[in-house]
Amino acid sequence: MGTTTGAASTADPAARRKAGRPRGELLNRPKIARAALRLVGDRGYDALTMSALAKALGVSASALYNHVESKQEVLQLVQDQVMDEVDCSGFATLPLQDAIRRWAASYRDVFARHAPLVPVIAVLQVSGSPRTLRMYEEVAAGFARAGWETSRIIPAIVALESFIFGSALDAVAPQDIFDVGPLADEVPAFSTAVDSQRATGKDPAQDAFGYGLEALLRGLPAGPGSA
Amino acid sequence: MGTTTGAASTADPAARRKAGRPRGELLNRPKIARAALRLVGDRGYDALTMSALAKALGVSASALYNHVESKQEVLQLVQDQVMDEVDCSGFATLPLQDAIRRWAASYRDVFARHAPLVPVIAVLQVSGSPRTLRMYEEVAAGFARAGWETSRIIPAIVALESFIFGSALDAVAPQDIFDVGPLADEVPAFSTAVDSQRATGKDPAQDAFGYGLEALLRGLPAGPGSA
Repeated sequence: MGTTTGAASTADPAARRKAGRPRGELLNRPKIARAALRLVGDRGYDALTMSALAKALGVSASALYNHVESKQEVLQLVQDQVMDEVDCSGFATLPLQDAIRRWAASYRDVFARHAPLVPVIAVLQVSGSPRTLRMYEEVAAGFARAGWETSRIIPAIVALESFIFGSALDAVAPQDIFDVGPLADEVPAFSTAVDSQRATGKDPAQDAFGYGLEALLRGLPAGPGSA
Repeated sequence: MGTTTGAASTADPAARRKAGRPRGELLNRPKIARAALRLVGDRGYDALTMSALAKALGVSASALYNHVESKQEVLQLVQDQVMDEVDCSGFATLPLQDAIRRWAASYRDVFARHAPLVPVIAVLQVSGSPRTLRMYEEVAAGFARAGWETSRIIPAIVALESFIFGSALDAVAPQDIFDVGPLADEVPAFSTAVDSQRATGKDPAQDAFGYGLEALLRGLPAGPGSA
């Protein structure tokens, strides 16, 4: 995880007021986002309630509500915190396909580390999350500069994200997810396929991600009208 | 969206037998699977505990344990119940690409109806789920008959599934997930792209799914060595 953004806390008047006081004070939005992220990571998404979050921060619920209005707002802070880890630097400098490769690999890794958030962030509105919006701007501008047909930019981004979110979940699946067990004889084609992939020695999740991403990159530029 | 396969429940002899009897009687594994599925649908995945499941079924925990050993076993029943709704009939009869289209559309629809299960089933082992294994056998056999290189069958299936799971989550996202709100001026390329997709009049999730699936279908058959 990233380092603490001390600068942000001193910019927060509420935090300045309480400088030097014991733990639980110096509350600010980045600190709230990080605590929420830890809570979800440790105890799952359903454990993220405003009261549990206040407790994890060592503050009262009312102190927490001084900084965020609702759980929805906490989620948008969390989204911004997580999306900020995704590397979209390539879109400004690399050919589009290479930029997508860098972004997709980073995006998948970030959400593999935050897998319980996949089903939450996949359906979360972006409007309240400025850093998330900035990521989408960089990606969309990269597609536009590459001459992509404008109405196909969002479908392309969403299709890539769907693949990335699913791949992030697959990255945290047990290695033996496709062990067929005692029924191997009943599913010969599947068993053979599983054994044959294993014989390549490649990590199955990484193999599927690379194979699928290259397929999308080859297939997508054929453009609109295909759906 | 595909239609619900209501036939599955009436075709279940156990379900027919107990029509009209009081709830809690004639406990069996399909009934346990359906109750678990309802519980997750109504109250989220974390609500699925053995005691909550027993309560939902109107039986004691010990009665439930007479039929299933653990929550893990319940999950495998649930996986079998859900995967059984996925239409993989095309693999025996249609050209591979058409079979994949039918299967993927059905698979996405089924998991859009059971979205809280996406992160659970995406990482669940298949060995204890005979109907799930049968689905994989039909799919793998379809790829094998089409001459797919054996070691690339599993990566292709997993890549498609990752895309399908992500698309199922996207299908339940709010329509306005990409509304940029007051920051529109700061993200001009993204705003333009969102408006341009909207102007097509196509449902955004369906548009992205169709676009991405056709891209995968075009890109995948280029085969191995690309990752």
